[in-house]
Amino acid sequence: MASDVTDADNGNRPTGPFSGVTVIDLSRVLAGPFCTMLLADMGARVIKVEAPKTGDDSRGYGPFLNGESVYFKFVNRGKESIALNLKNADDHAVLEAMIARADVLVENFRPGTMDKLGFTADAVAKLNPRIIYASCSGFGQTGPMSHLPAYDTVVQALSGLMSITGHPDGPPTRAGISVADLTSGLYTFSAIASALYAREKTGHGARVDIAMLDGMISYMIHGAMEYVVHGRELGRLGNGHASITPFDTYQAADEQIAICVGGDEVFVRLCKAIERDDLAADTRFARNRDRHTHQHALRLEIEGALARGSAEHWIGVIGTAGVPCAKIQSVSEAIESPQTAARNMIVEAGGLRMTGNPIKISGYDDPTTRRPAPGLDADGAAIRREFGNAGKGSDAAAGS
Amino acid sequence: MASDVTDADNGNRPTGPFSGVTVIDLSRVLAGPFCTMLLADMGARVIKVEAPKTGDDSRGYGPFLNGESVYFKFVNRGKESIALNLKNADDHAVLEAMIARADVLVENFRPGTMDKLGFTADAVAKLNPRIIYASCSGFGQTGPMSHLPAYDTVVQALSGLMSITGHPDGPPTRAGISVADLTSGLYTFSAIASALYAREKTGHGARVDIAMLDGMISYMIHGAMEYVVHGRELGRLGNGHASITPFDTYQAADEQIAICVGGDEVFVRLCKAIERDDLAADTRFARNRDRHTHQHALRLEIEGALARGSAEHWIGVIGTAGVPCAKIQSVSEAIESPQTAARNMIVEAGGLRMTGNPIKISGYDDPTTRRPAPGLDADGAAIRREFGNAGKGSDAAAGS
Repeated sequence: MASDVTDADNGNRPTGPFSGVTVIDLSRVLAGPFCTMLLADMGARVIKVEAPKTGDDSRGYGPFLNGESVYFKFVNRGKESIALNLKNADDHAVLEAMIARADVLVENFRPGTMDKLGFTADAVAKLNPRIIYASCSGFGQTGPMSHLPAYDTVVQALSGLMSITGHPDGPPTRAGISVADLTSGLYTFSAIASALYAREKTGHGARVDIAMLDGMISYMIHGAMEYVVHGRELGRLGNGHASITPFDTYQAADEQIAICVGGDEVFVRLCKAIERDDLAADTRFARNRDRHTHQHALRLEIEGALARGSAEHWIGVIGTAGVPCAKIQSVSEAIESPQTAARNMIVEAGGLRMTGNPIKISGYDDPTTRRPAPGLDADGAAIRREFGNAGKGSDAAAGS
Repeated sequence: MASDVTDADNGNRPTGPFSGVTVIDLSRVLAGPFCTMLLADMGARVIKVEAPKTGDDSRGYGPFLNGESVYFKFVNRGKESIALNLKNADDHAVLEAMIARADVLVENFRPGTMDKLGFTADAVAKLNPRIIYASCSGFGQTGPMSHLPAYDTVVQALSGLMSITGHPDGPPTRAGISVADLTSGLYTFSAIASALYAREKTGHGARVDIAMLDGMISYMIHGAMEYVVHGRELGRLGNGHASITPFDTYQAADEQIAICVGGDEVFVRLCKAIERDDLAADTRFARNRDRHTHQHALRLEIEGALARGSAEHWIGVIGTAGVPCAKIQSVSEAIESPQTAARNMIVEAGGLRMTGNPIKISGYDDPTTRRPAPGLDADGAAIRREFGNAGKGSDAAAGS
């Protein structure tokens, strides 16, 4: 029998679609933790299992505040922590007891690591046939590269993303965010949500296999169509768009602004706003495919007009005309913007401001203050009491 | 009563967690269609509602093949299409009848557009209290910028992403993929899956409100922590990492390679592989925070060693040592790689190769060939027969 303590910290989670769902989180660094943070933000109980002494690798990554990793705090809010040495038989049994009663198991070790620890897909399904066992790895559980280690930059390099980011006369460039990590975390979250829905219909769990490289391939839509249709590389387009014009950054008198014209009607409005109605009547610029063909000529015309005023001036004028346009904001400007505040996209946890949860669903909390990330093994004693006495595969534990 | 035709094209969809779920898709261009393509890939029936004559704007975007937009084909596979003029009373009634019987409604108009068409959240909930009504917009349904139009590049500019992408001595740079569009589509998919799960518990639908800007703010983790902790801008780091070293591209004799060292043990393996064990013993490079502090000195040492061989040589040597590293592949190299093939990440639809579905869940199809994107109104007649006779708000229709 499990102890009468059923939840180490039950009254302090936001409500959400996953209220009542228990997640065991063996993941480290960024992709897996980002996934499980979303689950926690949306009401799930997330129990982070960490290696004793060192914990999640990211506890050693900067920046640091009072000697603690802010990196770790940013992607582990709202979770509990227990330190387990999975090569130790007693600790191994604790994890087995947790698996028997959880809804979701998330890990992002290199493929094969969980197998070596005794947690093969079959073993986990035997402990709990209803569990969603989700793995997020660099290259997935199958294929010739499956066993290789990966990080975000490796995947940005291999996926072709670096080859199409940057300016035509410059080197391959990394997108300045860990887009491969974060997107694979988001895909893992998506897959878990989907599998939990399906479980309501089928009654059984599932194995989820997400790869960072797969995620980035799925994002390579424009590069892939250029190759498939024309047999050529998209290459580096600077800030321009593969098939839409004008859709780029343009120089005003002081700095660049982004202008995005998605259709012919919007182009007419842009021309009027910059007092160049004649451009809208020019056959070279009549339809998007014409403008795309003559994009260099069009840039000269647009920048000639924009040179008469500041970026701020033109954003006012062009924006008022209903043409999508923007200042190139710094991170601090983005974080401090009224829109970011209105959307509760900067929240507080443990006195630290951090990025919020973009999944807004009616009927649930979106609190401005969250439970902070746990200290290593902060909930270990309570979780051991809760799960520690549960026998391996006992019916009492499996049925709770 | 609805007609006896219950599905314009059943029997030809992959099985998936969302088999049996019906999605009405009013979305256009990229973010919304990417979301609903994922739903279709995972078994849902997706009925795309398009404006008569022109259809989805992206039908006018290149590249073109036999006069048809490949852009459109890439993100609309597996869907049905009906053309409806929502300002026409009869067509409006068809959509109402569809809403009464669907599980999910997705749109990515500018906030306010659906209200003007008569489809406020309240009106939709009245037609069908179980429906998940999901909106994906540039800035969300709330806040001072809510009403403004947006495209991917606008959001990359406003979120700070452009300000941290590129090289320290270069201009702000757009990530070469439509990351703001695609990520908001993926968040919308995630939210829909979550709300469908919750509906199994609560019995009622929900309103989902996803913003492209929110999604990108959630991805600005490293930039945000630099600002929150140190009060400064992350800036443009080239291909390096905000807090981990060595984690960058490095010049070999012929071209650059990416090397990513996530921990001290891996650093020792790298030093051994490049025959510079002495670096591992250097106190400047002992721990990650030391290496990060002395990253310029470390680059000189690493590139000095790499200059003795080609990129291909070093990827072999360093990779064999278990250190994450990679060639900077072009898009075509990424698409044609054995790993991409092994993961079924390039699929075929209508004779066209395109990017596949990265959400791999056991027990469901992941077919190599998919149903192609529909012609404009290709399923219109059948869908009108199916839904056309359903009275506005009739109990018979609402209960089916």
